[in-house]
Amino acid sequence: MKLILIGFGSVGQGFVQILRDKRADLAARYGFTPQIAAVVTRTRGSLYHPNGLNLDALLTDFAAYPDTPGLVRGWDAARIVRDCPADVMLEASPTNFETGQPALDLCRLALEHGKHIVLANKGPVAVAYRELNALAHSSGRAFRFEGTVMAGTPSLRLGMQALAGCTITAARGILNGTTNYMLTQMENGVPYADVLAQAQQLGYAEADPTADVDGWDAAAKAIIVAQALFNKKLTFADMDVRGISHLTPPDIDAARAAGERWKLIATVTPEGGSVQPTRLPLSHPLAGVSGSTNAITYTTDLLGDVTLIGSGAGRIQTGFALLSDVLEIFTKFTPSFTQ
Amino acid sequence: MKLILIGFGSVGQGFVQILRDKRADLAARYGFTPQIAAVVTRTRGSLYHPNGLNLDALLTDFAAYPDTPGLVRGWDAARIVRDCPADVMLEASPTNFETGQPALDLCRLALEHGKHIVLANKGPVAVAYRELNALAHSSGRAFRFEGTVMAGTPSLRLGMQALAGCTITAARGILNGTTNYMLTQMENGVPYADVLAQAQQLGYAEADPTADVDGWDAAAKAIIVAQALFNKKLTFADMDVRGISHLTPPDIDAARAAGERWKLIATVTPEGGSVQPTRLPLSHPLAGVSGSTNAITYTTDLLGDVTLIGSGAGRIQTGFALLSDVLEIFTKFTPSFTQ
Repeated sequence: MKLILIGFGSVGQGFVQILRDKRADLAARYGFTPQIAAVVTRTRGSLYHPNGLNLDALLTDFAAYPDTPGLVRGWDAARIVRDCPADVMLEASPTNFETGQPALDLCRLALEHGKHIVLANKGPVAVAYRELNALAHSSGRAFRFEGTVMAGTPSLRLGMQALAGCTITAARGILNGTTNYMLTQMENGVPYADVLAQAQQLGYAEADPTADVDGWDAAAKAIIVAQALFNKKLTFADMDVRGISHLTPPDIDAARAAGERWKLIATVTPEGGSVQPTRLPLSHPLAGVSGSTNAITYTTDLLGDVTLIGSGAGRIQTGFALLSDVLEIFTKFTPSFTQ
Repeated sequence: MKLILIGFGSVGQGFVQILRDKRADLAARYGFTPQIAAVVTRTRGSLYHPNGLNLDALLTDFAAYPDTPGLVRGWDAARIVRDCPADVMLEASPTNFETGQPALDLCRLALEHGKHIVLANKGPVAVAYRELNALAHSSGRAFRFEGTVMAGTPSLRLGMQALAGCTITAARGILNGTTNYMLTQMENGVPYADVLAQAQQLGYAEADPTADVDGWDAAAKAIIVAQALFNKKLTFADMDVRGISHLTPPDIDAARAAGERWKLIATVTPEGGSVQPTRLPLSHPLAGVSGSTNAITYTTDLLGDVTLIGSGAGRIQTGFALLSDVLEIFTKFTPSFTQ
């Protein structure tokens, strides 16, 4: 299986690191021996080799990747997606919540050229889920995006596959690790501005911190969950979205005094969605989810509530999301594969 | 798809009820239109109809099932499994932890006769996992048993499928709803004997309550998890198993005074397993799991801890486990199915 990787920031690097470190394990357990045929970066150009790139060299220093026979440098993303023979395009470039671009056009191009698409980038999924899903269906290719919600913690796989047969009537969760980390720190008495600086220093905050603290990142994930689970087209404009930046130390103290805790809760139902800072009693299952951990509760007709708690961010955790999607495509589309 | 159902207690009836109530939904969403070709009970005989039994009549009064052309009454289980053309045998008869019988022999027979097997019955899985897995592989049939751990909450599907690509290094959980319910009630000040009587009245306790309160039910589930996740053959004799029957009100009070809570914790690693009443601090993710709810935490190399919380018992909840396994078999073994 040959892969094209768009974006070589922390998620893309995490994915390549997993492939390097688990090469023997993946081959032994699943017969899975993928090659990275091409990597496209935003500012450092691209590399393409029809027989696969060297993972150690990619991780050591992309800019100093050695010349080898057959190596092609500098093709743009569109040319690579169009002209490189590969099975899957992985999109891990930065998220644009408004247009989904430039990733969205690459997703279209990849599907048109017979490639499966796997995204950690939330933009195209939040902006154009239906279009991409229809394109994938008509081209017989897979459209997977586990990494867009709760990193590699299999939140979408749980809702879309493991709970198949149930009807899910609502999803409710802590879907933004940065703000959950910040709220946990604020409960320890650290003021908002200091907590934000800490979160940025730790690399939790995304490129633009307002996407996290004003609730837009959680809202994008809610939009993705609504589409994937309810086939419900939601847009940011449809949702009541509030973040945590207005929460003050007295707000935090008042909750504590009442035996409660602030959490930024995203909710979606077949009717719509919202993101709201919410006071939860300490006995609530989501109240105990602290730090950068995420959680989602699916309310179902047959099982009642099913809650999944796990990591919501991180290079390896999100890199694993890409692996899990690629592995699923491998097992589904490889005729000889038996579990 | 034609099904044979062995056992028509609460789980078997729950499954049939779901098939009846969700007939239109399952057909519309998955193109899934199963028929129950035969039902075998322990004391009320059996029914078989090559064109499928009427679900309403089954649920209304099994003993008064009306005579219809083609209906066959009174075949024994082995004859039905051998001679009825069907795709899947579902085993939901009572668990025998020592021998797995008579279900184990029926599982062997079903696989030999080209039928997939789906179990809610823990006995055959705990006693003979390897043999059944090998038989299933060699016959190209599926061996599924989601309902043996945490009812229909997809604990095994999470560990075996959704986390594929990760290495799971340990599983730790609250796997017996009866004892967890009893511990929660004991924290409310109800003495052990009264709590046990309550649990039996509510139908939480299994036929033999010692299997629950002495930890053997949790141990059987731990054995199943160890086999499924680690391919580790565990037996009851290999495990350190303690139940909750020795816990006294002072034990409960002492934990509370220390800000802790007793939970019956099952643990498995590739090295072995145990079931032990354990004091957990209130901040521990499993400490908040109360009543008959179950939970399992998988410790993984790439994601850290992933915790799933959900129902651990109930006729509909366990009936759903059978549905989810059958639906998975349907989607995997139906060439024309596309998700």
